[in-house]
Formats: sequence, C-alpha cells, structure tokens
Amino acid sequence: MIDAISFKENTLHYLDQRYLPLREDYVATKNYQEAIEAIKTLAVRGAPLIGVAAAYTIILGINSFKGTKEEFPAYFKTLVAEVEASRPTAVNLFFAAARLKKVYTDNFEADTLETLFAKMHDAAHKIHADEIANCDLMSRHGVEQIKIDLAHILKTRKLNVLTHCNTGTLACCGTGSALGVIRLAWQEGLIERVITSESRPLLQGLRLTAWELQQDGIPFVSISDSSSAFLMQRGMIDFGIVGADRIAANGDTANKIGTCAHAISAWHHNLPFYIAAPVSTIDITIPDGTHIPIEERNADELRTIFGTQVATPTTPVLNYAFDVTPGKFLRGIITDKKAVVGNYLNELKQLFAE
Amino acid sequence: MIDAISFKENTLHYLDQRYLPLREDYVATKNYQEAIEAIKTLAVRGAPLIGVAAAYTIILGINSFKGTKEEFPAYFKTLVAEVEASRPTAVNLFFAAARLKKVYTDNFEADTLETLFAKMHDAAHKIHADEIANCDLMSRHGVEQIKIDLAHILKTRKLNVLTHCNTGTLACCGTGSALGVIRLAWQEGLIERVITSESRPLLQGLRLTAWELQQDGIPFVSISDSSSAFLMQRGMIDFGIVGADRIAANGDTANKIGTCAHAISAWHHNLPFYIAAPVSTIDITIPDGTHIPIEERNADELRTIFGTQVATPTTPVLNYAFDVTPGKFLRGIITDKKAVVGNYLNELKQLFAE
Repeated sequence: MIDAISFKENTLHYLDQRYLPLREDYVATKNYQEAIEAIKTLAVRGAPLIGVAAAYTIILGINSFKGTKEEFPAYFKTLVAEVEASRPTAVNLFFAAARLKKVYTDNFEADTLETLFAKMHDAAHKIHADEIANCDLMSRHGVEQIKIDLAHILKTRKLNVLTHCNTGTLACCGTGSALGVIRLAWQEGLIERVITSESRPLLQGLRLTAWELQQDGIPFVSISDSSSAFLMQRGMIDFGIVGADRIAANGDTANKIGTCAHAISAWHHNLPFYIAAPVSTIDITIPDGTHIPIEERNADELRTIFGTQVATPTTPVLNYAFDVTPGKFLRGIITDKKAVVGNYLNELKQLFAE
Repeated sequence: MIDAISFKENTLHYLDQRYLPLREDYVATKNYQEAIEAIKTLAVRGAPLIGVAAAYTIILGINSFKGTKEEFPAYFKTLVAEVEASRPTAVNLFFAAARLKKVYTDNFEADTLETLFAKMHDAAHKIHADEIANCDLMSRHGVEQIKIDLAHILKTRKLNVLTHCNTGTLACCGTGSALGVIRLAWQEGLIERVITSESRPLLQGLRLTAWELQQDGIPFVSISDSSSAFLMQRGMIDFGIVGADRIAANGDTANKIGTCAHAISAWHHNLPFYIAAPVSTIDITIPDGTHIPIEERNADELRTIFGTQVATPTTPVLNYAFDVTPGKFLRGIITDKKAVVGNYLNELKQLFAE
C-alpha cells in the first residue's frame, strides 16, 4: 500500500504528489510551516487527504508550542487560522480544523496542556482512521452491489471497469472511494481490467490512478477521455464507477469534468454507472444539480501541459473543472452507510434520518 | 484566407503545420525531395491536402527532369513510387497519383514532353481546384440544412456550434468540410460562437481549428473533449458538425476519436449532429461501421505531449485514433452533392447512382 500520508513519532510523512508518476518524493517534517506549504502547493491533494493533512499540521503546530497554558489560546487561534488559510475552498480542511477546535474548547479548562495535547493527537488520528474506515465501508457496499447488478456477466467472466480522475489512496488516505471499490472487487477476483480515462486537463487518471494501479499490480489501461464511448460500443467496458465532489438531494452529482459524458455513454450502452462517495459528500439542502456552483478554472490548464505551451496564450478557453451528472444516469450511489439505488430523493434523505 | 498550400511559378508553397499555432512557417520549394519530406514529416497533413501536395510534388519532380522523351517513362515511374511511399495509408495521395498517371498514360504517345507536362500541370491544379470546389458545395448544402433544422432557434438568436479535430483549410485546402460549413454559416450571420474540442491526443482542435478561427476572426472557445456533454446540458451548444474519415453504406461514420461521444451526448440533448464529407469518403462497399478497421496508434501520443513526458514510459495505453459513430445518432451527412438525411442506406446508394 502506498503511504500517501501518515504521522509517526511526531513527524508528518507525506508523498509529494506534484511530480507523480515521474518522481516519488516522500517527505518527512516536524515543521508545521512546511506542512502548510505542502497543502498550499498541492504537494498533498484530494479532499479527504487535505483534511487529514490539516489535522496533522495543527498537531505539528501544537508540538512546537513552548509557552505557558495561559499563552496557548492565542497561539492556537493563530495556528488554526494559518492552516485554514492554506486552501480556502477545501471543505474537508475546515471540518478537520473544527473537530480539533472542539477538542480544545471541550477540554482546555479542565485539562493540563499535556493531557489536552494528547487528546488532540488522538482526535487527529481519529480523523485519519475515519477516512480509512469510510473507504473500507464504501468498498464493501460497492462490491456487493456490483455482484448483484453484474451477476449475469460474472457467471462467465470477469469485469472491465471504467474510472475517471483519481479517487484512490492519493485522494482519500484509505483504499479510496471509487478506486477502493475497484481494489476490493479486484481482490475478490471480479475484475479483468481497469480502464482509466486520462482526465484532462490535469491528467489525474493518466498520472495518479495509473500509478496507484501499477503499484498494486492491478491490470489497467489508460485512454483519452473521449475514447470511453467507443470502448463501450466495442464491449470493452462493463460498468463505470467514479467519485463525487458534491451530491444533491435528488442524486445529481458534481464530479470531475468528463463524468457526465462517461455516464451518458454508459446509459446508452446499458451499462451501470456508479458514484462512490461518503455520506458527507451529500448536500441534502440542495434540491438538484442546477444549484451546485461549478468552478471555472484557469485557461492555462488547457493551453499549457506540464509547463509546455501547446496553444497560444490568447486562445480563448472554457475550463469547467467539474460537471453535473443527472441522477437518472446513475445506477447507484455507494456511500459508507449503504449502496443507494432507486429513488434518490427518498433514499438519500433516509441516510440522514437513520 | 490562410494559404495552406499553393503552386505558383513552378514553386510549391506550403504552411508547415507542425508548430502551429506557436510558429507559422511558410515554406517555398522547387525541390520534389523536399516536398516528399514535408509529407513524410507531417509538415503538411489532412487527407485532401495530402492529395494536393502529392500532385504538386509529382509536378516538381517532372519539372526537374532533364532527359529525353525515351528516358521519361522510367523516371516518371520511380518518381510516382517515391511520392506514393511517403504516407502509405493516405488514400487521397493514391487518388492524386492515379489521376496524374492517367494523364501520362493517355497522352504520352501522342504528345511532346512539353505538351504532356503542361497537361499534367493542369491536372494537378484541377485536383486542387476540385477540393476547393467540394468545400464550397458542402458548405452551401450544410448551411441550407442547418437553416431548416434549426429554424426554430434562428427566429430569435444565433447558433452555438460544436466541432471536433481540424476540418478546415489546413486539412482540405478550401474552406474546409465541417469547418467550411461553419465558416459559411458565420458569414451568413447564423453563428454566435464556435466551440472547438481540443481533440486529444494530438490537440488538432485546440491548436489548428482554434488558429484557423482566430485568423478569420470567428468567435470561438476551446474546451477539453469531455466537456461537451456538460455544455449541452447547460444549453451552450445548439448543434455539432464534424468531418469523416470513412462512411459506411448505412451512414456509420469513422472519424477522429471522440466523435462518437459528442454524437451520443448531442442525441441525448436532442441536438442535431452532422457529418460533412465529400462523396469520395463514402465507402458504399462497406455495409456498416463494424467493418471499418480502426487504427490503434502509438501509446506515446498520450504519454508525452509536445515532447514533455506526462506518464511513465511503461504506463499501458490504448490509443484508438478513430471511432465509429452509428448513423442513427446523425441528423445528416453533408456531401458535395447534397445533404443526405433520413434513410442512409437508400440515400447514400442514390448518390452513386446519380
């Protein structure tokens, strides 16, 4: 297993993802400023992993505190603010910071600093452990759903699965969301080959997912994003599974640009297409996908590739980072609680009632 | 208008397309070996344009002949063989060579070399003129069909059109096939904006089509290939039009990889999707798309971009250069003879009977 992030002997260990797969730089630091820099520069990335990195960064900051108990509140406030400022749009970062702030608020009065710090250490490790556990739960629910939906094929042969972008341990800490399901399905002998679409503009599929699969020895092939429809037509894909950035109450799902095109093609070829994402990704207050804001990113992400200019700097570019896949194209939404199929409007609401 | 290829005062002029849009190198040569090199190295590309380049290359070769009439047949045979060997899979190249060989065969006995050469010059110019005329005919038929099919939108506003790869003057000599239709539609005030998908792996949409549109001052925006479905969902695309590499008797169309995905998305969003291609592209002997061989190209086209390594050299890649769009997803096939809509099996056969 790739060690994308860990915290041992008061040291943060992380894999610098910027140069993958061409360079694997494992970094170790006790310096919280260096850890903040890693979040800022995208050396660590992926929403759940950023949350874990933020928690450990706060612990590094606490470890370097040398003052009195009276001096700690001001120090802690500044520290958390610094960490929160590192990636202002990453919601997992704020969730992680909020969990540590709660440990502080609940225990500061009663505890010694030593006891308080120990509780915060534990809380940071718990955030990490929860992400790993979520991956395992999603993987299990996903595999069971696949066994049901694709039983007719599994009678005679293994499955070819399409995935998009990176949803593995590099993004999620554990085995991954969609890639976690794929990993477990492969371990259980259900998978023939993974097809990973490159995921323009930033090529997370070609670079990161391919690298993870290669590390695990899972057979795969990378394709250009626009090839998936043709592979489906040729019978080379049996189902698709991807992650999610935000899921609306009706199942409409925002995910990496290209997801919607894959899902429509799958629908047309009668192939099941799944989302794998923790319940925390579901925004039950949003009625449907039209209410999800879609980030438009810098045109240079298309005009230059790894620093190489491919189009003129004045070429007009429209670079949506995400798209919205209507719930009707999805066979199921695999969460850590259960695999949700059928009427999303009822079923997703149910997850929050339980 | 861009001068992608021309022949004046016994000199071949061409635009070296390899470094577009970052460098515009116009080259002039009287040396037929240099012209062959330009075809070999993809300095000139695009099926119709390669045919024209091949014809002019043969003329350059003839111009440098210094022998007697008796010595000419052997010289001509070697020359044509050399030109034909420059891009062995480009069918237009063989069509062009065949037309010049026919002029030679029909006239060699009766004519002086001077007269024969003049007739061959004329034939080469005729090949070029025919390609230009084809573009004009396709453009006219295409625009008329669009006016009919999209009349309901044109009552209130102009159209946003999606195109893929490069089908302009850089590929076709004239105004282009699909891009020719778009150009004429724009001149007639029907077009708001062109959306050009980048066309991974070789980025002809982002590089070449974008450059052509910029030269003409036609408003456009480039997108990643997998964005088109989402733009359709948002109402930002009204129709699509692309070229073709080969069309089967039932309308199934082989074209640049990505076409099928665009067409399926268009079908889903109830948007007309057209092919623009000369009748010579229709292979009436092929019953359907499953009989069209699809070229699988070098994996490094995905693993490296403009010489920059983005994936490891061992990353497995499946790189189909073309896909097949089932005829049922096409609103029409725009040819130089007419716009074919409806039952392709009957209608396409009719084109050859006329």
